[in-house]
Order: sequence, then C-alpha cells, then structure tokens
Amino acid sequence: MIKEYISSNKDRFLSELFDWLRIPSVSADSRHKGDVRKAAEYLKEKLSSAGVDTVEICETKGHPIVYAEKIINASLPTILVYGHYDVQPADPINLWDSPPFEPVIKDDKIFARGSCDDKGQVYMHVKAFETMMKLNLLPCNVKFMVEGEEEVGSDNLGTFVKENKAKLKADIILISDTALISLEHPSITTGLRGLSYMEVEVTGPNRDLHSGVYGGAVANPINALCSMIDSLHDENGRITIPGFYDKVAELTAAEREALNKAPFDLKEYKDELGINEIKGEKGYTTLERTGVRPTLDVNGIWGGYTGEGAKTVLPSKAHAKISMRLVPNQVSAEITELFTKHFQSIAPPYVNVKVMAHHGGEPAVTRTDSEAYKAASKAFEEVFGKTPIPTRDGGSIPIVALFKKELGLDTVLMGFGLDSDAIHSPNEHYGVHNFLLGVETIVAFYKQFAKK
Amino acid sequence: MIKEYISSNKDRFLSELFDWLRIPSVSADSRHKGDVRKAAEYLKEKLSSAGVDTVEICETKGHPIVYAEKIINASLPTILVYGHYDVQPADPINLWDSPPFEPVIKDDKIFARGSCDDKGQVYMHVKAFETMMKLNLLPCNVKFMVEGEEEVGSDNLGTFVKENKAKLKADIILISDTALISLEHPSITTGLRGLSYMEVEVTGPNRDLHSGVYGGAVANPINALCSMIDSLHDENGRITIPGFYDKVAELTAAEREALNKAPFDLKEYKDELGINEIKGEKGYTTLERTGVRPTLDVNGIWGGYTGEGAKTVLPSKAHAKISMRLVPNQVSAEITELFTKHFQSIAPPYVNVKVMAHHGGEPAVTRTDSEAYKAASKAFEEVFGKTPIPTRDGGSIPIVALFKKELGLDTVLMGFGLDSDAIHSPNEHYGVHNFLLGVETIVAFYKQFAKK
Repeated sequence: MIKEYISSNKDRFLSELFDWLRIPSVSADSRHKGDVRKAAEYLKEKLSSAGVDTVEICETKGHPIVYAEKIINASLPTILVYGHYDVQPADPINLWDSPPFEPVIKDDKIFARGSCDDKGQVYMHVKAFETMMKLNLLPCNVKFMVEGEEEVGSDNLGTFVKENKAKLKADIILISDTALISLEHPSITTGLRGLSYMEVEVTGPNRDLHSGVYGGAVANPINALCSMIDSLHDENGRITIPGFYDKVAELTAAEREALNKAPFDLKEYKDELGINEIKGEKGYTTLERTGVRPTLDVNGIWGGYTGEGAKTVLPSKAHAKISMRLVPNQVSAEITELFTKHFQSIAPPYVNVKVMAHHGGEPAVTRTDSEAYKAASKAFEEVFGKTPIPTRDGGSIPIVALFKKELGLDTVLMGFGLDSDAIHSPNEHYGVHNFLLGVETIVAFYKQFAKK
Repeated sequence: MIKEYISSNKDRFLSELFDWLRIPSVSADSRHKGDVRKAAEYLKEKLSSAGVDTVEICETKGHPIVYAEKIINASLPTILVYGHYDVQPADPINLWDSPPFEPVIKDDKIFARGSCDDKGQVYMHVKAFETMMKLNLLPCNVKFMVEGEEEVGSDNLGTFVKENKAKLKADIILISDTALISLEHPSITTGLRGLSYMEVEVTGPNRDLHSGVYGGAVANPINALCSMIDSLHDENGRITIPGFYDKVAELTAAEREALNKAPFDLKEYKDELGINEIKGEKGYTTLERTGVRPTLDVNGIWGGYTGEGAKTVLPSKAHAKISMRLVPNQVSAEITELFTKHFQSIAPPYVNVKVMAHHGGEPAVTRTDSEAYKAASKAFEEVFGKTPIPTRDGGSIPIVALFKKELGLDTVLMGFGLDSDAIHSPNEHYGVHNFLLGVETIVAFYKQFAKK
C-alpha cells in the first residue's frame, strides 16, 4: 500500500522537488538572499499542503528557519526532523554538464545543486509525511525544523534552539543529510566530524610590484603563504599545530576493527577518483582517516595575476581558505584559536598575516544502543532486506552536537545519498531510486519508532 | 631654443599622449586585440605628422609592429629607436584611484596604465623627433620600430628582425623602457635580466570533492602545489632547481663595488614599500639581488573556492604562474627546460602535474665604453648637470640580446622612469617632468651621437 502510493505519485513528487531545486538558495552568496527566502516559502507551502497543523517561517539574524508540526496525540512520541534547504555555491559552473539550477534526470539520477545535499533528502521527509497522512498511517507526532544556513555554519540555529526549547520538545532527532555505503550495503552514520573554517591573508609590499624591479629583494606573499601552508603538515601527514591532537579520542582496537569491517575496495576508490595513490595520516586506514581522524585542507587559494596570459607581478597579497575537520573530543572554538595563534606565530617577519574564522561545528558520535537506532536498523531491514552497517562519516552536521547539548536529544542519521553523488561539486546528483527508497524507509522508521 | 619649443608645446604633447593612453592596448587579453591595433594606428599617424619619410604597420602572427624611418643622408649614422605600445593588464582594477585608461595629472604625474611603461617613454621619442624636425636640428638618420607584444614576450619580433636585417641596418639601438635612480641621480641601465615565465597545473582527484567526505584520505592539490613551490627555494633563499646557477656570471669584486656605489637607502626602500624586512639570496645586497642575481617568483596562484564565504571543497586542480628572472649567461630556453624537468620530478605520486612555458627572454649587459654610451652620458650631463651612474636593472627587455645576436648592434638604455612609478601595478604613473626632461635628453643624445 505504501509502496503503491509512492510509485503512483512518483512523478508528482519529483516535479515538486524539481521546482524547489530551481530556486538557487546559495546561502554563502549575498546576491542569492532573496532566493534563499523563496526556497523557504516553497517548503512552507509544501509542508502545509502535506497536512501539518502549523508551519511558520522563523526569522533569524541570517536566513530564516522553516518550522512545522503535526501533533496527533500529546501522549505519543515525537520525532523532530532536521534538515537544510540552503545549498553550496555551484561554481566552478563551467564544469557542470547541465545548468546547476535546471534539474534533469540522467541514468535515473537527478542532476542539480542540492539534489542530494540537502533539498532532495529533506523532501523525502515531506513526502513520507504526506504518504502517512494520506494513508492514515501517521503513528506519532512530528516536528520539522529546516534551516537555511547549514552550508555557512548554522550561525543562527543555536540561538533559535536555545530560545525554543519547549516548542522543540521531542523524543528523537531524525536527519537525512548523510550517505549510504551503497544500495547493496545500507548503513547508518554514527559519527560525524566537526569543523573549523579559517581564512588567511598574507601581505607583503603595500602594492603590487614589478617582479623584475623588485623580485629577489622583496618577499613574495604567495611564496610565503605556500611555505606556511606546507609547514602545517609533517612528513607523516600529521598536523603540526601545537595542541591540535590533545583532545582527540583514540579508538579502541575493537572500535577500529568494527569500523574497518565496512566494505571498502581501495582500487575501486582510487579508480573512481582517478588518482594513482591515496595520501593521509600515517598509521591509519582510509576509513579511519575520513571517519575518526582530524584533517586540514586548503579549500581555496588565490593571489597575484590569475587571468589569461602572463603578468610579471610581485603581488601585495595572497589569500587562502583553510578548514579543519574535527573528531571527538576536539572543540571547534579551541581549534580555531590554536590555528590562529599558530598561523600568526609562523608568519615570517617580512610579511603581515591576518587570520579570520568563518565558522565551526562540533564533532558528534551517536548511540547505537538507543531505541531510535534499533528502529532505524529495523526500518532498513524492512526496505533493503539487510541490516545496516554503522559507519563514521567525515562530513559535519554541527547541529547534532548542539541538539545533544541544548535539548538532550539523540540523533538518528538516516541518510540515503552516496559518496559518489558529488555533493559540493559540479554535477551533484541524487538517485531517483535512493529518493524513493528513502521515502519508504522513513515511513518504516515512524512505524518502528512508534512501536517502542 | 629646444627647451623653449618643448615647453611651449608641452600641453599639446601631453594631450596627444593622453589620447594614446586612452586606448587599452592590453596585449595579454585577446578581448583587447582591436584596441592593440588602434594603438598602433594612432602611433603611425603621429609619426607621419612628426615628419618621417615612411611609416608602415607590419603584420605579424600576433600584434603588429609599427616601423618608420627618416633618412636625411645615407652617409650619416643611423639611430634605431625601439619601444612598445602594448601595456600590462590593469587588474586589480579596484585598486586604481582613477580609471587606468582615463589619464589624469595629479601632483605633476600622469596616472594611467602605460603612462611610463612604455607609451609615455616611446612618445618622448616621437616628440623629440618632431622637435628636431621643426627646429631643423636632426643630425642623423632615425628608424623607429615599436612593437605590440613586449608585455607578452615579444614572440614575433625575432622573426621580424631576422626577416628585415637590411631595413633595420643602423649604428645603435636606443631604448627608453627603464628607470632612473632618481631625478637627482640620473643613471643609464647597463644590464637587464632575462625571463622564463611558466604556468603549472596540479591535479588531484578527477573532480572537486567534499572535504569532509574525502579530506584526510585524498591528497589536496593545493596543499601539494604549496609544498612544491616552497621547495623551490632553500633556507638561504637560493633556487633549488638543479643546474639553475651553472651559467650565472659571478661579478668581480670590482664590479660588485661599482654596482653598490649607486645611492641606496634601505630604510627609505622598506618604508616606501611598507615592509618590515627585506628577503633575498643570502650573501648579496639588495642592488645585487635585483640587478645581477637570478630570482624565482610566483606571479599568481589559484585553486578551489575563492568566492565569498566558505565552501568545504577538496578541489580537483590548483594552478600557479611562476617566473624566473635570469642574468648573464643563463639561457631562457635552458632554464625553462630545467624548471619543467625539476617541477615534474618533484611531483608527488598522488597528483598529476602539467607544466607549460609562457615566454622567455635573454639577459643582456650593455657596454659602457662605446661611443653611444659616452654620447648618452654627455646628453645626461647637459640636461641634468650630472654624470649618469651605470646601473643593473632587474627588469627584462629581451630584445636587447636579440638585437646583439641578429643585427650585431649595441643598445643604449636611456630610460626616464622611476622605480616608484608603479609600472605593472595599480596607479601606474609617469612624471610630467620626467617626460619633458626625457624629450630634451633624447635631442641632446642625437647631437652628441652624430658628433662622433
């Protein structure tokens, strides 16, 4: 009956999602401020037509939060669904095979920015809710909190949560913003990395100079920035910032063994990425490097002449965006401070260095012994016919730690994407099959969770 | 009489130059191809109205060369004036106080791209020629060869010179594309550095990745590029490319002493650039580092997300433009090859590296014992009242070596700019006083040179 409803409404589900994906809700780009709000309003309308009691657009200092709820019986358990309707910038746009905000289906996959992260996954919840309402199967209460600032650090969500603890009262948080190992190997994410995102500016001379007239006598800020970045890792791939690893929780042998049980084929992994060799912290496997170890990556760098042809300039400034993924029990604010101090301290005397923090988020580990986790596990078994594997995910959903701290609630990370979905990249996509299985699995979760 | 003519025609001289500066003849940017030609046509018109016998626009595979001549008597010596009418790109445009192609005079300085390098200095020769024609003072023959590709490596000038040896027959080359130490310390450049200009591309994964999902396990091409760039210098500021210094001509103690006689105030130098410390090859003075030592600078770097806000991307590619200044007896083609081999050899196994060469030029040293040099020296004494100091200039004018090789001709580098003119930078400018003194000194040079 559920399968039937989903498959017979499949085309409408997708065309509604497509309309949402057409709105370029890029939270990082102030030029899209209006689009972000439009995306919020679209979601509000779809939630209300799906049958929620109340839905509102809650203002924040930044982009708004969409909140909705359906209370069928106060004595029943309540599921709080969290997600985000903002998306990453689409650039480099020239690398997209089809325009990022004109969704198309190719090989049964939806190609568009946000198709997987996270509009596509949020919309599974809207349609799962609609399905349960239409079929009179909603077994418990549900609340939706969908924000528009996840891709820029959820700066205003903390305040919203603190100020609305009563309203957000629930028994469990349900989030679909992660990936499965594969459709053959369903998995549930039980750990997430935190984040500290920095931007640095290195200034040499007070103006761009002619590299012939001054080159060799005046320090070049690009060369200086490169040296400073290079020094942030040692020969074993470890991060050299003093104190960086102090709070890192080392896994037990048993935990490491369990983690490395997840199916992983290094050759497939390398082939899919087109690389000859992997690189990472010495002494850890790839699953450990991406799941339970902290990392530092330059996300962007720029300086001097980057246009066509040649310009013999010795530039005044060089810039980089540098982010660190954190693991339990690192604290984002502390790492941000350690980075700032260290980067200032390694600045050579012939340049000036500015360090600013973009945003951060705390790492989190979710329980595998909770009723909610068991319900999620059963839901996957029902739909996929296999027990899901618990995995550690390298990405960050800072809200998970925030929820635990502010609301005392555990989270279930029921994601249906795939690592190969190219989220944050050109040609982001999401399997139509993943979308439909997701709707079905979410419905199954409600049933299992309400049973408890 | 000469002074009189110059000062009474000053305003017209400048307004003609301004019209020329308004044409954005940026040779590096294909969008300005038409403007480059317009600038050539403008020069052709001004040369013919100044009184040359013939003037033509000579086509090349790239931007055209303007050639003109005035032969008053085949038995008299001939001066071949070389210069370029193309200019550097204006970016970063937002750092200009006034639009780069709308010349204005502030504090008796002309502010515009090309005001000094090299339209302003070329136009001194056009007006000096006009002055001698009008006053019936032209004492010898003159030929003009002004190209439109100097800022992109003079790729087609070599062919033109080889194919027009008879036409270009002369006794001396005269070029104004360099700087004086100051108006109080006139100088003649006797050495120029060569150039090898490279561009590198480092590729990691075959697409931009989510830095959370892959960070720590997949090499980041920006981090890799930074390490490779950092390794190009050792702790003494020496370039680590094997064989790079093999052909470098070391100066004798006497030559070094003479070179360091030039007035130089380190504090003034640092204050003018707004830097706390200088940096360069250990064991050499600033004048040596910029004049007689080879250097390596990153002129531009880019990769990943460089827009507003934060994007947690592990990029597929990182790029850099890297140029090396060469000194006698380094050979540009050889250094380009050494760099390419070395950069490929230091590429770690987890990235792919592409290296391409933009352009190069040979270093050159001009004689100080030639009749032409003596004539130039006398001309400066006449106009400035001081004997000019011979200096080594860090910039490159590849044509000087080419002239020696192909035409067997020496060059006199009679430049009137100042290092503080910000050529290749925002707010490039050229002193009105420098321009007028230049016209006068050039006229004096013709007289002195014809005497011999």
